[in-house]
Amino acid sequence: MSTTKLREDAMTIFRAGLAAVDPKTAVRRALSRDGEMLSCAGESYNLADFKDVVVIGAGKAGAPMAAAVEEILDGWLTTGVVNVKYGHLDKLKTIRIIEAGHPLPDQAGVRGAREIVQLAELAGEKVLLICLISGGGSALLPLPVGGVTLEEKQALTEKLLACGASINEINAVRKHISQVKGGQLARLASPATLITLILSDVIGDPLDVIASGPTAPDSSTFADVYEILQRYQIWDGLADSIRQRIQAGRDGEIADTPDSSDPAFFRTLNVVVANNRQAMTAAVEKAKDLGYNALMLSSCIEGETREVARVHAAIAREIVDSGNPLAPPACVISGGETTVTLRGDGKGGRNQEFVLAAALDIAGLQNVVILSAGTDGTDGPTDAAGAICDGETCERAGLAGLEPVRHLENNDAYPLFKQLGHLIVTGPTNTNVMDLRIILAGDDG
Amino acid sequence: MSTTKLREDAMTIFRAGLAAVDPKTAVRRALSRDGEMLSCAGESYNLADFKDVVVIGAGKAGAPMAAAVEEILDGWLTTGVVNVKYGHLDKLKTIRIIEAGHPLPDQAGVRGAREIVQLAELAGEKVLLICLISGGGSALLPLPVGGVTLEEKQALTEKLLACGASINEINAVRKHISQVKGGQLARLASPATLITLILSDVIGDPLDVIASGPTAPDSSTFADVYEILQRYQIWDGLADSIRQRIQAGRDGEIADTPDSSDPAFFRTLNVVVANNRQAMTAAVEKAKDLGYNALMLSSCIEGETREVARVHAAIAREIVDSGNPLAPPACVISGGETTVTLRGDGKGGRNQEFVLAAALDIAGLQNVVILSAGTDGTDGPTDAAGAICDGETCERAGLAGLEPVRHLENNDAYPLFKQLGHLIVTGPTNTNVMDLRIILAGDDG
Repeated sequence: MSTTKLREDAMTIFRAGLAAVDPKTAVRRALSRDGEMLSCAGESYNLADFKDVVVIGAGKAGAPMAAAVEEILDGWLTTGVVNVKYGHLDKLKTIRIIEAGHPLPDQAGVRGAREIVQLAELAGEKVLLICLISGGGSALLPLPVGGVTLEEKQALTEKLLACGASINEINAVRKHISQVKGGQLARLASPATLITLILSDVIGDPLDVIASGPTAPDSSTFADVYEILQRYQIWDGLADSIRQRIQAGRDGEIADTPDSSDPAFFRTLNVVVANNRQAMTAAVEKAKDLGYNALMLSSCIEGETREVARVHAAIAREIVDSGNPLAPPACVISGGETTVTLRGDGKGGRNQEFVLAAALDIAGLQNVVILSAGTDGTDGPTDAAGAICDGETCERAGLAGLEPVRHLENNDAYPLFKQLGHLIVTGPTNTNVMDLRIILAGDDG
Repeated sequence: MSTTKLREDAMTIFRAGLAAVDPKTAVRRALSRDGEMLSCAGESYNLADFKDVVVIGAGKAGAPMAAAVEEILDGWLTTGVVNVKYGHLDKLKTIRIIEAGHPLPDQAGVRGAREIVQLAELAGEKVLLICLISGGGSALLPLPVGGVTLEEKQALTEKLLACGASINEINAVRKHISQVKGGQLARLASPATLITLILSDVIGDPLDVIASGPTAPDSSTFADVYEILQRYQIWDGLADSIRQRIQAGRDGEIADTPDSSDPAFFRTLNVVVANNRQAMTAAVEKAKDLGYNALMLSSCIEGETREVARVHAAIAREIVDSGNPLAPPACVISGGETTVTLRGDGKGGRNQEFVLAAALDIAGLQNVVILSAGTDGTDGPTDAAGAICDGETCERAGLAGLEPVRHLENNDAYPLFKQLGHLIVTGPTNTNVMDLRIILAGDDG
């Protein structure tokens, strides 16, 4: 099997993964209508029971998700507002798409969030609310509690990051100075019937973490938040508005975020419509169609990308050497999202760095390609989604006067792969279920 | 399946892996005698053709390997000398076992190496030499070229390490100031018939790397060595004896290490009698016997141990969540050898640190255990071979007043696992084929 063929197959497999988590496809898979009967995740809703059907939501995939909902609920929708990232605007018939700031929230986001909250608050028992959540939904649905500015909230997040707080601790604090996060949007919407369709960009699909869980139960409390801020010794330096809010919560003057026993969730259905595992499953199926023995390694891969890459390279080597964990022609798919500890000042992203580290470890290996790319079509501050390498990549780099080890040390994978023509450029895919990595090992034929 | 049962099974599987690479077992598997016919790796030798059968060798597994050879060649052996590490002495009938320094070579090692070289040099066409090589064989067969002291050689190695030379570069240099490394022992032994039995402690079993390849072809040259020493700017600061040696080699006054075309190897057979993959294969078989679906991930795993552990934990999580890469009851085996970047001053080893990092990532997961242990029975400067954890390890640590994250940060896994009773203590196993890691995921039953 030639490397060219392996590269083509790897791209075909990657695209099959992407197609399975396309936001429109995902919404259509989860939500279907037959006359006045709407079905979602095994539940049925008679649309004739509702006075209004209203769409709300936030996230980078908001526009195509909304378009699919409009299509499915053609003629049944009353109104809708969905916040999306700048550049993701779409003109729909009923639902208004609002562009806002991401990753830094801005006033456009706040204005959209106010409209969304108003739709939720006004929705009575006779309203069906469909909420569309996807990656970036936290920054794209910014609504701090009264008196707290976006800047104060941002400053607090930075302080928490600087003192080494865990992401769970940071989320607990942020939920308690927001009007919508941590299930509070579901409480505002109650007693309406609420269906939330979620495109997951978090490992394991934790509902309370994706977009800070606006319609999911939250187990953290004002007491926890106070303890966290005291422990990291940032309570005293907080903005007055934030301290007063948390103090009022501790004193029982404000309701805490709703936990799973809260009546707010009696009529709430949270449904993950697309996630990393779905993309992997489709990729594995496509690999099998193409004649590969295929294996899903894990959708939960985390860790330092260059070290994770070494494990993947070791698996590639074992396939070639001994036919384990599966015999060639073989395809191993992994998902999740790795991290990069910056050491240099080069240009790249976690996927490109992964492929460069893997290239060093598979140097000289015949009949193997390794691909890694972000399902959102972007990888770090570059125009690429990722990259692809084979056993000759390092040699070709050397012939081109490039030093792969130096590029890796300097977090500078992009220029190397650009010069070799090994970048994967998809443009924005409108979806995001983290990354896909593909090892392909051909047979000798 | 209870965690207790999973732990027992993990230990049973680990022991099955160890048993497969026991030095005596390995030698008996590779070498067999039927009357005067000796068979090894498909080759046959008529012992009656030889005047003498002589055993030489060096390595930590030297004593049991030699004992097995004595047993197989009962009555046929003339003499033999094998260098082993202090504490690994054994009293054999014909072969003399000599204790020597490891990892730092000493004069006892040099004296033993001189005897070994003499046996090789004196061996004529009518001699069958059986050479036994195992981990540590490089330090245990120290014979610098004339005029170079062990201290000068050691100082050079340290300089090369300090300036960031690769292990391949360091090996190339060392081979060229040794009388035996880099195939030179095979050249000394020529025209005798030479069978080298190798217990591999290196990923991929590269014959020229294991114990610096005393009987394997070497492709590096005096010219390479000069270039390396110039490039790292340590040529000028070298001991005179070393500089003179390399200069003489460049001038063609001394023969270079023999490459694969050298007649020295016409009658040489290098056979890997045990390696990491054999241990893994036996472990996989035992897991299947115990009723597990079992998979060999890779025998080539390298990288920072805590990051490699995260990938293993992610695989465990995927098995539980989706039945991939294989359905429970499931066993995934990996091998190779990871590294630890020291950040703290605690007590532990790469296997214990692996298990601690994995424990953090599988915290709360039911029905899973993860084991990692060195096949030599030692892990870092501890009396343990490794450790074993499950989804409750972190909780139990917390209840015992221990903080797993702090112990990991401080490279201090040993006291934590000791207190929890999660250490694996085997004592010295006399073998070394790197590490074994075992993920077990039980079914719900």
